[in-house]
Amino acid sequence: MSSPRVTVVPYLDIINEGDDFPIPQQNVNKWITTKKAHYDLRVNGVEPPVGIVHPTVVDALREQPGWDINDTADFRTITIEGNDEASRSEAVARTFASLRGMDKFVVLSRWRDELKPAYGPNNEILFNVERAAVPLLGIVSYGVQLSVYSYDVDTKLPRIWISKRSMTTANYPGLLDNTTAGGCRTGEDPFESVVREAKEEASLPDDVVRSSARACGTIGYFHFRDDKAIGETYLLQPEIEFLYEMELPDGVQPETNDHEVEWFQLWDVEMIKDGLTQRLFKPSYTLVIVDFFVRHGVLTPSNEPDYVDIVSRLHRVLEFPMMKCRI
Amino acid sequence: MSSPRVTVVPYLDIINEGDDFPIPQQNVNKWITTKKAHYDLRVNGVEPPVGIVHPTVVDALREQPGWDINDTADFRTITIEGNDEASRSEAVARTFASLRGMDKFVVLSRWRDELKPAYGPNNEILFNVERAAVPLLGIVSYGVQLSVYSYDVDTKLPRIWISKRSMTTANYPGLLDNTTAGGCRTGEDPFESVVREAKEEASLPDDVVRSSARACGTIGYFHFRDDKAIGETYLLQPEIEFLYEMELPDGVQPETNDHEVEWFQLWDVEMIKDGLTQRLFKPSYTLVIVDFFVRHGVLTPSNEPDYVDIVSRLHRVLEFPMMKCRI
Repeated sequence: MSSPRVTVVPYLDIINEGDDFPIPQQNVNKWITTKKAHYDLRVNGVEPPVGIVHPTVVDALREQPGWDINDTADFRTITIEGNDEASRSEAVARTFASLRGMDKFVVLSRWRDELKPAYGPNNEILFNVERAAVPLLGIVSYGVQLSVYSYDVDTKLPRIWISKRSMTTANYPGLLDNTTAGGCRTGEDPFESVVREAKEEASLPDDVVRSSARACGTIGYFHFRDDKAIGETYLLQPEIEFLYEMELPDGVQPETNDHEVEWFQLWDVEMIKDGLTQRLFKPSYTLVIVDFFVRHGVLTPSNEPDYVDIVSRLHRVLEFPMMKCRI
Repeated sequence: MSSPRVTVVPYLDIINEGDDFPIPQQNVNKWITTKKAHYDLRVNGVEPPVGIVHPTVVDALREQPGWDINDTADFRTITIEGNDEASRSEAVARTFASLRGMDKFVVLSRWRDELKPAYGPNNEILFNVERAAVPLLGIVSYGVQLSVYSYDVDTKLPRIWISKRSMTTANYPGLLDNTTAGGCRTGEDPFESVVREAKEEASLPDDVVRSSARACGTIGYFHFRDDKAIGETYLLQPEIEFLYEMELPDGVQPETNDHEVEWFQLWDVEMIKDGLTQRLFKPSYTLVIVDFFVRHGVLTPSNEPDYVDIVSRLHRVLEFPMMKCRI
């Protein structure tokens, strides 16, 4: 039923690279020490913290109005002042416009003019922040992923439509990525994000995606920005990706539409394994591939010794308030 | 595409009931306090601890030879003496035979004459222990789950073959359960456990299961034994279930074979949701159902506010050495 195993992929290494913030269950002291090496991002009256900020960023924010910094607490804190979303968002906007003007952080050179929300524990938006500044505050990012696939009738194994990110995209230029992936807009149902992105990026018709795409889970991870991204590599990115998949109906295939994608290619399992081993994929997408392989029975307890660790680690519980889906 | 939503299932409540040991990312002090209210089960020279033991059990083990107890450590410990698997297994066997004879613990009244392994960090078996005594030591249990399903052509929704546990089973008598579920034998490939259990419990032919069943993930949870089980409710059970699913080929259906199952019935999504709300299912199986609903697009970001929390929580990272699958 399965083809000969050609490539041995170091799946657990790949997960450790993408989800590299310490795991409390594995080493609680290292987890606490790493948190104490940073500052909890707080909003007055709100529990728990909503982000995690590197001391270098705290030092830059120290010189900006609107931030209250406690350097002596057991877990050090930086609190955004303001009593409502509007006043906090204004302080945040003023701060990062100022830092952008000063060329303080490379990540701000990729300014998008797109706001991202920081959610509180009751799904209230505590403030909005320019997308390029999100890693400076270490708040949770939410994305959507659509894996478009078909089954090979001979091998009975799935193949996935892989995209190549253009060299001009703001982040991770030139890396390989999912058929479609993108950010959730504030208040947008993740499924609507998928429909929108699939059309914009892959020319996939609305009606096809609406009738054939299916939600199939999430992945969660917490990682230090790496050198495949543009900008500071010490910044922290806790992320949740909403996963969707779609078996391709006859006569439809993804096609490039905007400047974000260089090409689409249908890759079989061995090609993808080879790409994983060579680290050709955007780090977040590597985790999405591993979850796809788990759900589709490519990666199994019968062929992977670290199966239990791998599946658990794909779904990290984050210590920040989680976005609630809107019904 | 989906039928009208009849039952609103409190999915997150159900997960909180099945996975009720504190979550470090949510409340690290409560997690540490709860651990400190117990004893770490240790083996000399091995990190990390392999189980978690309630003080009542520690007091019973204090009177038995072979156990070294430290009541003053920051995290209190109980260490099984012995330098190899054989000597530790012998001490464990002697201990629980003695406690069984003294009627110390109700769980030991369900003695199975079946050994379960405690794995070390390199997949070495540290010791074996009678299955009925596993919750007394709080070591990780490993099980397999096979969900046999078919799709309703009208609603395009899945239906699952549900089993009713007989009133004479050792644990959770009379509750509803998956088509097939069972424990992994020491050293057995989980897929082979599935093939064996599917035949024993549901009369499903070997060749059908081998050609059609597919691995699709795991769930992990850490719970206090509840009053639906037989025996002490304060005992801790960290568990991993290997998940498999099989779309039923024409002409095949599960049939009772042994005394463990009272009946099989094909339940649709609304019946299952109703059963979840009424808590008709074995607690571990409720989590398997939720994961099935996630993978099959029944539970989605568009119909469940707590979707992100739910998916993460189904895959708990446990603080004990994980069994490696044998290739």
